[in-house]
Amino acid sequence: MRIFIAGIDGYLGWALAQHLAARGHTLAGLDAMLRRDWVAEMGSESAIPIALLPDRAAAFQARFGASLTLYRGNLLDYDFIRLALAEFKPDAIVHLAEMPSAPYSMIDAAHAAFTQHNNVGGSLNLLWAMKEAAPSAHLVKLGTMGEYGTPNLDIPEGFFEVEYRGRRDILPFPRQPNSLYHLTKVHDSHNTTFACRVWGLRATDVMQGVVFGTRTDTLAADDPCSATRLDFDQCFGTAINRFCCQAVIGHPLTVYGSGGMTRGFLPLRDSVQCLALACENPPAPGEYRVFNQFEQTYNIKQLAEMVKAAGEALGLAVEVQHIENPRAEVGEHYYNPDRQKLLDLGYVPTIDLTGEVRQMLADLLPHADRIRAHRASLIPDIRWDGSKRPSQPLGGGA
Amino acid sequence: MRIFIAGIDGYLGWALAQHLAARGHTLAGLDAMLRRDWVAEMGSESAIPIALLPDRAAAFQARFGASLTLYRGNLLDYDFIRLALAEFKPDAIVHLAEMPSAPYSMIDAAHAAFTQHNNVGGSLNLLWAMKEAAPSAHLVKLGTMGEYGTPNLDIPEGFFEVEYRGRRDILPFPRQPNSLYHLTKVHDSHNTTFACRVWGLRATDVMQGVVFGTRTDTLAADDPCSATRLDFDQCFGTAINRFCCQAVIGHPLTVYGSGGMTRGFLPLRDSVQCLALACENPPAPGEYRVFNQFEQTYNIKQLAEMVKAAGEALGLAVEVQHIENPRAEVGEHYYNPDRQKLLDLGYVPTIDLTGEVRQMLADLLPHADRIRAHRASLIPDIRWDGSKRPSQPLGGGA
Repeated sequence: MRIFIAGIDGYLGWALAQHLAARGHTLAGLDAMLRRDWVAEMGSESAIPIALLPDRAAAFQARFGASLTLYRGNLLDYDFIRLALAEFKPDAIVHLAEMPSAPYSMIDAAHAAFTQHNNVGGSLNLLWAMKEAAPSAHLVKLGTMGEYGTPNLDIPEGFFEVEYRGRRDILPFPRQPNSLYHLTKVHDSHNTTFACRVWGLRATDVMQGVVFGTRTDTLAADDPCSATRLDFDQCFGTAINRFCCQAVIGHPLTVYGSGGMTRGFLPLRDSVQCLALACENPPAPGEYRVFNQFEQTYNIKQLAEMVKAAGEALGLAVEVQHIENPRAEVGEHYYNPDRQKLLDLGYVPTIDLTGEVRQMLADLLPHADRIRAHRASLIPDIRWDGSKRPSQPLGGGA
Repeated sequence: MRIFIAGIDGYLGWALAQHLAARGHTLAGLDAMLRRDWVAEMGSESAIPIALLPDRAAAFQARFGASLTLYRGNLLDYDFIRLALAEFKPDAIVHLAEMPSAPYSMIDAAHAAFTQHNNVGGSLNLLWAMKEAAPSAHLVKLGTMGEYGTPNLDIPEGFFEVEYRGRRDILPFPRQPNSLYHLTKVHDSHNTTFACRVWGLRATDVMQGVVFGTRTDTLAADDPCSATRLDFDQCFGTAINRFCCQAVIGHPLTVYGSGGMTRGFLPLRDSVQCLALACENPPAPGEYRVFNQFEQTYNIKQLAEMVKAAGEALGLAVEVQHIENPRAEVGEHYYNPDRQKLLDLGYVPTIDLTGEVRQMLADLLPHADRIRAHRASLIPDIRWDGSKRPSQPLGGGA
């Protein structure tokens, strides 16, 4: 297949490109190169050294013996994306080109406005460009499990059948997200649903859990042209990745609040496996389908304890520290989301979470000095009320 | 109360300002003066002559003996709106400052992008500015009944209790809107819900039906400083208003498709009554409440027949013509939305729809030449697939 990856220079994008190339697909990639700037703005950088995109692309072409067409530009530039699609003629478009951080969206009014405009406006341009230049292509759009929030109900995959006052209908499952970033994914889901219904586009909206890890079967974490980035700062470092970076420099693993929040997680190797399955099994024209994509649900405190145990097995001294939660979210809650559709397509979950974490720690240990140099970025000071104040340790229960 | 109207130069804004002033409130108004440009872009103008805003404001101050503070600028300018709120210190903010046309949002990629950025970005700035500069003010935000679409269920006011797989929760009612404009209102509703929950703001989100009419008790349609605009072009002219303008120039009343679409409608005098009730009865801090705001549901064909009868009673020759529906929408459907909350606050519906239409026709007859001069703008050519082609008459069933 001809697959176009928007956001190819990112954490998922570069891992996915190699996975898809190894499966024989022909690739193009688009990137505006913003992620590296955002992480620098946070006073940090990728823990794993990564090459610049042109060098990555050259190594990719040498390794896979296949061209990698690169489009450097921004989805907010409508003519750019329309012309890129018209030229490459993709069968599938994987859209990973959004600003992916909840705290970044909550910094101040300007960052909030940027986040919503960048994500929602870029995706809307992409939908319109598909209608004009690639109407039969399949959009695989990255959403987030965070769209759903934490309702007191099971969470289906996108839609549910409701009985209300004696009548029945199948409706979109209501979205109750917890940040202005997560709201952009909700807005995208609504816009994409409309584009499929009215313009006959086809889309898979991936409600993805939190991704962690440094490896896939086609990715060498010790080769800067093959490795994908691994962030640990308060904005772009997600829970397990940040815990592992803390463990390798002897920094306490910082659990927000009680750590009772439960979320879906999946290793990077599962994410690329699932996204490939989505691409290779497109929906019918006009269909908007939703996949919940995660390996299993875990609560944050359990994950910290698991990273601590894996670190201690490697001889590291690791402690867990509970700090004030800078976010507005419920600490203890019901959480039972479905994730059947990808299993039906053949998704084989990794299961061995501890093995994955051990591999991450081994990949990160050679780069402990890079992490240590940016250790200030590990502690959150962006609060959901728009103020800035570093989270303090909580007494007791750690 | 001190009430800040964003979008004071618009159809609802100028009518509401006079209604609130007559009730003794102290007013400020913000406008970027875009509506007049958008209608000109459609090759049209208001059927009812209206004065420029500074002249309106001068007449307002003379009539009510009260100042009217004007802020000329755009909600996309965050510092402008924050400083305006900090200066005026409103108790309530009525937000009418969005681009309100579904067809305008569907013209092309650029108009779609403008609509979503203008509406969602402006509202997000307003929420952030309230948090910073007016956190106890009450936001009365104009949404639309079109957010809900046409589900096969009764439509509650914003939220419903759901039982699913043996568990219960109260959830936002799912939104299934029918244009990129209506989607902006859905996005605003999600952003506003979040701002109330996380920042403790208070808001009333008004799911308003289609407004029609030239009059309120405090508005003289024959005085350009008191009159409010009345549009009839394909983008900014809503169904009854457009039918009345067609009737006074002997143009067939153009019903889209079968005309079986059912929607909530309300006269302008009811809209200002309801918005005043919302302002004067604020919710608690942190509360996000939703009002469905319409007088009654009607189908479009019935409304055309009613305008025809009212026109004929005035001696006009009126015919009804069915034309191709340029929109993607369901022609015949179940529709039973609630509208109890405003009745509970004292809303007295006008009921006399025919009387309201007769008054409109009388107000419009002196301006038939203005309508005739822009009659080309009456026929829709903006299609939901992004193409441009004038709708043709349908054979038979008219």
